[in-house]
Amino acid sequence: MVFKKITLIGTSSESFDAAADDAIDRAEDTLQNVHWVEVDELGVEVATADEREYQAEVTVAFELED
Amino acid sequence: MVFKKITLIGTSSESFDAAADDAIDRAEDTLQNVHWVEVDELGVEVATADEREYQAEVTVAFELED
Amino acid sequence: MVFKKITLIGTSSESFDAAADDAIDRAEDTLQNVHWVEVDELGVEVATADEREYQAEVTVAFELED
Amino acid sequence: MVFKKITLIGTSSESFDAAADDAIDRAEDTLQNVHWVEVDELGVEVATADEREYQAEVTVAFELED
Amino acid sequence: MVFKKITLIGTSSESFDAAADDAIDRAEDTLQNVHWVEVDELGVEVATADEREYQAEVTVAFELED
Amino acid sequence: MVFKKITLIGTSSESFDAAADDAIDRAEDTLQNVHWVEVDELGVEVATADEREYQAEVTVAFELED
Amino acid sequence: MVFKKITLIGTSSESFDAAADDAIDRAEDTLQNVHWVEVDELGVEVATADEREYQAEVTVAFELED
Amino acid sequence: MVFKKITLIGTSSESFDAAADDAIDRAEDTLQNVHWVEVDELGVEVATADEREYQAEVTVAFELED
Amino acid sequence: MVFKKITLIGTSSESFDAAADDAIDRAEDTLQNVHWVEVDELGVEVATADEREYQAEVTVAFELED
Amino acid sequence: MVFKKITLIGTSSESFDAAADDAIDRAEDTLQNVHWVEVDELGVEVATADEREYQAEVTVAFELED
Amino acid sequence: MVFKKITLIGTSSESFDAAADDAIDRAEDTLQNVHWVEVDELGVEVATADEREYQAEVTVAFELED
Amino acid sequence: MVFKKITLIGTSSESFDAAADDAIDRAEDTLQNVHWVEVDELGVEVATADEREYQAEVTVAFELED
Repeated sequence: MVFKKITLIGTSSESFDAAADDAIDRAEDTLQNVHWVEVDELGVEVATADEREYQAEVTVAFELED
Repeated sequence: MVFKKITLIGTSSESFDAAADDAIDRAEDTLQNVHWVEVDELGVEVATADEREYQAEVTVAFELED
Repeated sequence: MVFKKITLIGTSSESFDAAADDAIDRAEDTLQNVHWVEVDELGVEVATADEREYQAEVTVAFELED
Repeated sequence: MVFKKITLIGTSSESFDAAADDAIDRAEDTLQNVHWVEVDELGVEVATADEREYQAEVTVAFELED
Repeated sequence: MVFKKITLIGTSSESFDAAADDAIDRAEDTLQNVHWVEVDELGVEVATADEREYQAEVTVAFELED
Repeated sequence: MVFKKITLIGTSSESFDAAADDAIDRAEDTLQNVHWVEVDELGVEVATADEREYQAEVTVAFELED
Repeated sequence: MVFKKITLIGTSSESFDAAADDAIDRAEDTLQNVHWVEVDELGVEVATADEREYQAEVTVAFELED
Repeated sequence: MVFKKITLIGTSSESFDAAADDAIDRAEDTLQNVHWVEVDELGVEVATADEREYQAEVTVAFELED
Repeated sequence: MVFKKITLIGTSSESFDAAADDAIDRAEDTLQNVHWVEVDELGVEVATADEREYQAEVTVAFELED
Repeated sequence: MVFKKITLIGTSSESFDAAADDAIDRAEDTLQNVHWVEVDELGVEVATADEREYQAEVTVAFELED
Repeated sequence: MVFKKITLIGTSSESFDAAADDAIDRAEDTLQNVHWVEVDELGVEVATADEREYQAEVTVAFELED
Repeated sequence: MVFKKITLIGTSSESFDAAADDAIDRAEDTLQNVHWVEVDELGVEVATADEREYQAEVTVAFELED
C-alpha cells in the first residue's frame, strides 16, 4: 500500500473551514481513496479580491491503486 | 508557580472550532486551572470516518497545585 | 514597490475566524493598501478571560507609499 | 535540466527500511530517471492495521524529460 | 472522541526499528487504544552505554475513554 | 530502558536560570530518575504579574521503571 | 477557485536567478495559470557537473480549471 | 544599545539581488543606523505582474536612538 | 482587543538576563500595556565590542488602544 | 568540560542503520571520547550509485581534551 | 573575507551564562578572530552529573585567514 | 564512503551569487572532493562595511578519504 500526497489551496469568501472544504471537495472530485488531509497554512487575500478571500493550503493523502 | 503542558486532539464532524472546543472541554473536565491553549495542527480524517472528521491538535497549559 | 509586514493578534469570544477578522479590521482601519494576511498561530486564552477568548496571530502585508 | 519532486508514503509490516523501499519501488515503476530520495517522516499505524504498519514518507526527485 | 499524545524514548542495542518497537511495546502495556505513532528523533548513545544504544523518540497517540 | 518526556514551565521573579530550576525542582519532587532537561522557550510575563515573571518552558526526560 | 502546488528544481551554470527562471520556464511551458512561485532552497552541485551547477528548488502555485 | 527589527518585501523585474536592494534602499531612506539585513524568503509573483516580479522578504535591524 | 508584536534586541556586557531586561525596559519606556515577551534568540557579539556583548532578541506583545 | 559537534554522512547499500553505523565508525576511528550521535536526515541516492545507496546524516558530539 | 562556523557545547555547574562563556572561552583559546556566537540550545544534564550541569550549545563564527 | 559537512560564510560587495562562490572557492582551495553545497542563509552587512556586504552562509559536503 502506497500513499501519495498533493498540495491544494482552497478559497472561500466565508471562512477558513469553507476554504479547507473547498480544497477537499476538489480532491475528492478527481482522486479515489482520499485518506486524510493536513492543514499547512491559513491566509487571507485582500488586495486582488472583491471581499476578503479566505485561503486554506492543505496536503491531501490518497492511496495509490496497485 | 509551575505549569504543565499536555497535548490533546479534539474531533468534530462540524468545524475546526468545534474540534478545538472538544479538546478544551475534555481538558477542563479533568484538569484544574487551565490557563491557555495553543493550536498545534489542524487536519481532516476522511477514510475511517463516515463523514469528514475535523481534528484540532492542541497543547493545554495548566497550573500545577503546590 | 515595497511591502511592509506587521504582526497583530486579534481576539474573539466566538471563533478563530472572528479573531482573524478582528485583527484584519484593525489593520484596515489604520493602514492603506493591505494586500494579504498570513495566519501565524491560533490559541485560546482561558485563565484571564470570562469566557474562552479565541486568538489569531496574523501577519499583515501592506504596500508602502512611495 | 529540471527535476520534479513528489511525496509518497510507503508501508511495511516489517521495518522502516522496507517501508522506504516500498515507496521507492513504486516511484521507479512509474517514473523515469529517479535521482534521489529524502525521508521526511517515519511513523507506525497501529489502530487500523492487523499488525504494526511501519510507514515512511519520502520525497522522490526525478529528472523531467525535455 | 479525544486523543492524547505522550512522548517516549525507546532504546535497543540492535537497531532503530527495535528502539521504536521498544517504546511502542511500553505504550501498549500501559495504554488502551493506541492509534498511531510518530517518530520524532533518532539518536545513538555512546559514552554511557557498553555498546551503542540506539534510541528512538516517538510520540504515541491514543484515544481517551469517555 | 524507556524514557518519558513531559513539558513544564517554571517561573521566577529573578532570572531565567531560576525559572528553569523551578521547573526542574518540581520534576524532581514528583519523578524518580530524571536524566536530562531541554529548554524549549524563554519568556517574560508582564501584564498579569506584579513584577516581571521570568518563565522557562522545559522538557524533562526521566526513565520509566520496568 | 482552487490552486495546486508542485515542486520543481531548476538548474543553471550561471546563477541562482537563472536556475529559478529555468524552473519557472518549465512550469509555464506545461501549466496554465501560474500565479506565484516560492523559493524553497538554493544549492550548488559540484561533483557530478563539469562546472558549478546552481540549483533552485521552487514551489509553483497555479490555478486549477473548473 | 537596543536594536529594532522590521520586515520589508522589495520587488524587482530583474533579479533577487535587485529585489533585496530595493527593500534595503527603502529602509535606509527612512531609518537611521541600519546595521544588518537577513533574507527571510525569496519568491516570484507571476499572475498580477506584467513580467515576472522577483520578491525578497528581508528583516532589517537598526539601532534605536537613546 | 487587538495586540501588536514588535521585535527588539537588547544588549548587555553582563548576562543574557540583563540583555533581555534591556529590551523590555526600552519597550516599556515607549509602549503602553506591554503584556508578555518571548525570547527569540540569544547571541554574543565579540568582534566589534570591547568586551563580550550579550544580546537577547525578544518579541514584545502589547495591547493596542481602541 | 566542552563538547564539539561535527556532521558526517555515512552510506550503505544495505540499510539506514548500517549507514548511521558507517558514520559513527568513522567518527570513532578519528575522535577520542565520542559521547552521543543525533540523526539529522535519512536519504537514498539512486542516480549515481549502482544500487540504492542509503545515507544517514548524523551529528557527532565528542568531548574536547583540556 | 570568509567566515567558518563551528558548534561547541559549554558546561557549568552554575548557570546558562557560565556555560555559554565556557564554550566561548574555549573557542577564543584555539581560534583567532572570533566574531560572533549564536546560542543554539540550552539544557541541563542531571543523571550523569553530581549536581545539575548547565549546558549551552553555541555556534561560533570566526574569520578565516587568507 | 563517508562525507563531512562544514559551514562557511562567503562575502561579496557585488551579489549573493558572488558571496556563495566566495565560500565555495575557499572550500575548494583547502578540501579535496567537494560534492555539493547547500545555501543556509543570505544576509547583508551594512554597519561595519564601507558598502553593502552581501553574505551567503553555505554548508559544504565533501567526501572523506579512506
